[in-house]
Amino acid sequence: MNNALLPKSAFPRVVIIGGGFGGITLAKKLKNKKFQTVLIDRNNFHTFQPLLYQVATGGLEPDSIAFPLRKIFDQSQNIIFRMAEVSFINSQEKYLETSIGKIEYDYCVIATGSTNNFYGLKDIEKNTMPLKSLSEALDLRSLVLQNLEQSLNETENKSAYLNFLVIGGGPTGVEVAGALAELKRHVVPMDYPELNVNSVKIYLVDNNDKVLSTMSEQSSTKAFDFLTNLGVMLKLSTRLLTYDGEVATLSDGETIQTKTVVWSAGVKGQTINGIDASLIESGNRISVDEFNQVKGHTSLFAIGDVALLREKDYPNGHPMVAPVAIQQADLLAKNLQHFQNKKSPARFKYFNKGSMATIGRNKAVVDFGKIHFQGSFAWFTWMFVHLMTLVGFRNRVVVFINWLWNFFSYDRAIRLIVRPFKKRD
Amino acid sequence: MNNALLPKSAFPRVVIIGGGFGGITLAKKLKNKKFQTVLIDRNNFHTFQPLLYQVATGGLEPDSIAFPLRKIFDQSQNIIFRMAEVSFINSQEKYLETSIGKIEYDYCVIATGSTNNFYGLKDIEKNTMPLKSLSEALDLRSLVLQNLEQSLNETENKSAYLNFLVIGGGPTGVEVAGALAELKRHVVPMDYPELNVNSVKIYLVDNNDKVLSTMSEQSSTKAFDFLTNLGVMLKLSTRLLTYDGEVATLSDGETIQTKTVVWSAGVKGQTINGIDASLIESGNRISVDEFNQVKGHTSLFAIGDVALLREKDYPNGHPMVAPVAIQQADLLAKNLQHFQNKKSPARFKYFNKGSMATIGRNKAVVDFGKIHFQGSFAWFTWMFVHLMTLVGFRNRVVVFINWLWNFFSYDRAIRLIVRPFKKRD
Repeated sequence: MNNALLPKSAFPRVVIIGGGFGGITLAKKLKNKKFQTVLIDRNNFHTFQPLLYQVATGGLEPDSIAFPLRKIFDQSQNIIFRMAEVSFINSQEKYLETSIGKIEYDYCVIATGSTNNFYGLKDIEKNTMPLKSLSEALDLRSLVLQNLEQSLNETENKSAYLNFLVIGGGPTGVEVAGALAELKRHVVPMDYPELNVNSVKIYLVDNNDKVLSTMSEQSSTKAFDFLTNLGVMLKLSTRLLTYDGEVATLSDGETIQTKTVVWSAGVKGQTINGIDASLIESGNRISVDEFNQVKGHTSLFAIGDVALLREKDYPNGHPMVAPVAIQQADLLAKNLQHFQNKKSPARFKYFNKGSMATIGRNKAVVDFGKIHFQGSFAWFTWMFVHLMTLVGFRNRVVVFINWLWNFFSYDRAIRLIVRPFKKRD
Repeated sequence: MNNALLPKSAFPRVVIIGGGFGGITLAKKLKNKKFQTVLIDRNNFHTFQPLLYQVATGGLEPDSIAFPLRKIFDQSQNIIFRMAEVSFINSQEKYLETSIGKIEYDYCVIATGSTNNFYGLKDIEKNTMPLKSLSEALDLRSLVLQNLEQSLNETENKSAYLNFLVIGGGPTGVEVAGALAELKRHVVPMDYPELNVNSVKIYLVDNNDKVLSTMSEQSSTKAFDFLTNLGVMLKLSTRLLTYDGEVATLSDGETIQTKTVVWSAGVKGQTINGIDASLIESGNRISVDEFNQVKGHTSLFAIGDVALLREKDYPNGHPMVAPVAIQQADLLAKNLQHFQNKKSPARFKYFNKGSMATIGRNKAVVDFGKIHFQGSFAWFTWMFVHLMTLVGFRNRVVVFINWLWNFFSYDRAIRLIVRPFKKRD
């Protein structure tokens, strides 16, 4: 394998794999520091994953929640971006094999995040719609709209096109189900006067006996009420057993004819070939120490979703959420300089800022430590926090304007089937 | 073939094929008239084609220039939309064969517009990038960005990724070449500090001895100057002979290594199977009389690009532009009511509002009858007219904000490779 073409530098090279929250935070912090930083991602943009569900349901366009990675580095000389896939890591000889050639490193930071976990269920992997990337979100948007269109051409099989099944009652599942319920309520009656709006059915299935099971009891209960009020049919303590693209079979024996099953029931760490199997722990995450150093390595680190760091308060690792990745990246930027200067590094300690989820218009739930609140104020809080954490001023403006529009018009304007979704073979 | 499922109606049925400027204008005018109007389009949205080039060059997202067709008809009872492809027309028995079944009509209006004309050149059809649809625009956006990325990984073959060839010096070609030149000037130096900006080359090739050959001499000359100042290399009186995906051979003998060739050198009417070959005239357009009635038919009409109507001042038909389609649709809406009421129809007379093209920031050319102007004022005129003719208030707001952003930031923010373009087999 040839060496990838990269500018020469007198500084040690830090290669960051992945331009998610962790990767871009770290790269920004290393700007103008004494490193040559090489950021690698398979896409040329950062994706703000918390709002993917709004792309999938016609509320936002990709440009609102994607940020060109090169824009982050404008005018900084010691930061290099390459769009590439990493296929293998050799941590003994300190190099990566990638789609653009071999890349040597002095320090390597794995910030590859997480991917969908189908728990080995092949039919479910093949036939359901996941929601972890922009192109998956656009596929789901197309499919939902295609199925509404096709329902008009059906008689016996009509309900299969109008039943929407969401698997997994975590934040993503709750948000998708809520957004679909609002589409049903506000868009379907206007766009499809030929359809009986009651024939559109949205199901949310979760294995637990409540939704948002990682949040407070109060938030779970309130989210359940919000969803029920929006007309979502909740099937708790229930799992999806099989789905062949036509019929979903649930663990309570019920079968549902449906063309649309959204899979938001699990994620797992997205590791890299070459990492020793003994280092990969539960959830497919790479075991790291309190400096995010991969165990047994001095030059290899992992941060964010893909890293499993056992802290006293988090004996099974941290939640796979953006603040963990950002905080680990912040600290690692400092520690890399300490390592380089032979100073002792600082230990990671997670500062939990709380969690939140939105169900729909005026309906959100927020947990800030012991403070829990729900409803309109929670919804505004949710919007404010998401606007402020979006990367890029332009993105904030575009999202804000779209939200204003959606709020006042009750509309989801971006109901475009730009590229029809075709079933995977 | 089964009948498509359509609501019953006491009114005669007008089927409109195509949701372009002509189709939607006609459908809107038939709202609440004594017809059952069925609009068919292969997409669920209307595309504002004049701004496709801005989607292709990262200035706008699809939602700015696409308008969901169902939104046009909100709450009107006698208008029906179906997303479908028409495969055949039987004008004797008055029905269409479509992807959703057989559709009978009392009146049928063909408003299918135009499609790319490759003049039978198979290698050019296979390897060049056309720009007539949203998905083509997104493909071009991806390809341009992919090639900039890949150029960083190349040594001998680098220039092939940095040479951008635009074929056809009509408004689309001029606009694409100008927008690429601005990308080169404003975005490349920021995003690709590793690249020598002078190694990025944009060529515009046209068979005529001037660009914008259908506009005034003054506009042509000024457009030529604008393009030259932007650094576009103009190759006039020159044709593209062959392009195999690697090397473009021009009629002056020059060969250019390039991975990106944009084809904007020709369009032709997009007719439907079943139309008698004798009715199809030059440019693949359907011959119609002054009522837009297809010759020899009383229930069949064609409007817009696909129609060839020989008026005194337009012995070879009208230009294939939006105002013609809109004016023909306006008149046909009235005439259909006249036909139905056995009144005599009015003849079509084209009112030419002029033409314009934009080359870049502060650079546009406008012809209004005998008035010609260029530069900043022309550029503002161009923007104003395009904003006002965009369908949908939201779209105008979104485009306006994006333009403001692009103006003040000199940026093209939407440089996202959401779905990488893959070569066609």
